[in-house]
Amino acid sequence: MNEFELIARLTRALPTNESVVVGAGDDCAVLDVGAGDRRLLFKTDAVVEGIHFTSETPPEKIGHKALARCLSDIAAMAGTPTAALITIGLPKNFDPKFVARIYAGLNELAERQGVAVVGGETTTNPERILISIALVGFVPRGRVLLRSGAKVGDAIFVTGELGGSLAGKHLEFEPRLSEARWLAENFAIHALMDLSDGLAGDLCHLLKASGVGAELLKTAIPISRAARLAAKSGDAAKPALVAALTDGEDFELLFTVASKDAVPLLDKWKQNFPKLKLSCIGKIIAGEGVRLRDKTGVQTLAVHGYVHFS
Amino acid sequence: MNEFELIARLTRALPTNESVVVGAGDDCAVLDVGAGDRRLLFKTDAVVEGIHFTSETPPEKIGHKALARCLSDIAAMAGTPTAALITIGLPKNFDPKFVARIYAGLNELAERQGVAVVGGETTTNPERILISIALVGFVPRGRVLLRSGAKVGDAIFVTGELGGSLAGKHLEFEPRLSEARWLAENFAIHALMDLSDGLAGDLCHLLKASGVGAELLKTAIPISRAARLAAKSGDAAKPALVAALTDGEDFELLFTVASKDAVPLLDKWKQNFPKLKLSCIGKIIAGEGVRLRDKTGVQTLAVHGYVHFS
Repeated sequence: MNEFELIARLTRALPTNESVVVGAGDDCAVLDVGAGDRRLLFKTDAVVEGIHFTSETPPEKIGHKALARCLSDIAAMAGTPTAALITIGLPKNFDPKFVARIYAGLNELAERQGVAVVGGETTTNPERILISIALVGFVPRGRVLLRSGAKVGDAIFVTGELGGSLAGKHLEFEPRLSEARWLAENFAIHALMDLSDGLAGDLCHLLKASGVGAELLKTAIPISRAARLAAKSGDAAKPALVAALTDGEDFELLFTVASKDAVPLLDKWKQNFPKLKLSCIGKIIAGEGVRLRDKTGVQTLAVHGYVHFS
Repeated sequence: MNEFELIARLTRALPTNESVVVGAGDDCAVLDVGAGDRRLLFKTDAVVEGIHFTSETPPEKIGHKALARCLSDIAAMAGTPTAALITIGLPKNFDPKFVARIYAGLNELAERQGVAVVGGETTTNPERILISIALVGFVPRGRVLLRSGAKVGDAIFVTGELGGSLAGKHLEFEPRLSEARWLAENFAIHALMDLSDGLAGDLCHLLKASGVGAELLKTAIPISRAARLAAKSGDAAKPALVAALTDGEDFELLFTVASKDAVPLLDKWKQNFPKLKLSCIGKIIAGEGVRLRDKTGVQTLAVHGYVHFS
């Protein structure tokens, strides 16, 4: 049983109440808390030493990554983050200076994104550092963007370049908060999520939630320089395209819009975010699963996204 | 450096914004989110295998305890919990049935308290299970009860009986949510918190936050049957009074009210909560620290509450 199967099993019948607009299964939970025309977003995410960072990772980057991952989920709802709580599990012989540097990296990102850090809990986790972040944020009532809104004929977009994040980007990425809000404010985005487990796997989640399939154009998938370098380096390397499809921790945005909006969106994007690439990588089709098209024809995508516990 | 010193250091200069009413340092963070005359409460808490439960603990009780601890912090603000997110770190060879039973215990308590469980995140924590709970809840705007409101002359109360929680209560306690709300609705409570680290230590936090001291009446401190039994059992036992003062995980309420309200409060309490003991254990005095009075006179309390990392 992998992470997704376990979560599917556990979230089949969860306690609910009248505040719940969106429960488990999307990037954030969405709650109606009577806050005027705003919905509350609620999300947690954890990073663990030896899994998401190593004992060699500069502590400021550990703190940055811990918060940035969780902020990326707020971006995936086109929301604005408000406040964060930090739970940190520490070995008994922890170095207070190291922990202070984790907080320094985290606080710097929080300041820049206007997020208040409203509490810090510590506990003992004897073998390794574990940081769990809880976030609340808001999104306008009529502008909640879910994974489930993709429609047949939609154009599929991704921001940035994909693959090879573990070479460095996963510790330094800036969550796409302003880009996501801009998209939601300026276009009728149908479905939105962030890429954390690899394009192939994450797109499958979006397709399943929307009850549709996708056809991607092989040459349109934006491959990162890191993925290209790794592919050339030889040892145990996978082709750069496979890396772009399956490597985790891209933390870019994946979204769909009606095909008629695709060109205006690309044009306006270039004016507003000239430094950040935006790629139309394919279209939503009837059916299920992902097909990959190149000059020679169409094949069904067999490669899987990164799956925890596998 | 212990847990409290570390937190004090880390929370000296945290990023903030205009939503923050109460940041780090009280039982919950309090946010103004424009939700009419209600304030948002926000809290996280974690339990770790080998620290807060053992590999022998029935999994339903692990789930119950994980959520109950966090709910106790909402009770400590006289709030009403709304929704929870569950982050669970699991060894690679985890048993899905065991995890499902953790959720069953947690969900049962959530249902009973009207809390929606709106998401479950899993991650790998190779050596031991770790569960981090994030909670949001609400409290009426004018009724936020902090640790810092105690005034000289106040009567000091605790619910229930103290000490010996590790004999079983820590896995089964019901958070004092309805009792705390009833107190806030019916009396001008000055300061309120929950007991998690032991009466002596937790009272010191309340006194420090309020800038006052306390004199406790030795014979008034309610000692649990578990603490009395442990004291009699001989091996490595501490006197029952010391257990009641210093054992952690009581999860009872500690609060202060003006002395004129003490007798009416006790009377009305007995009518409303006939099964739950309420004890007036002393009074708030000028100065600092805790003094303990008995027939022979007054001594300064030297015993310390349970301190993590010590």
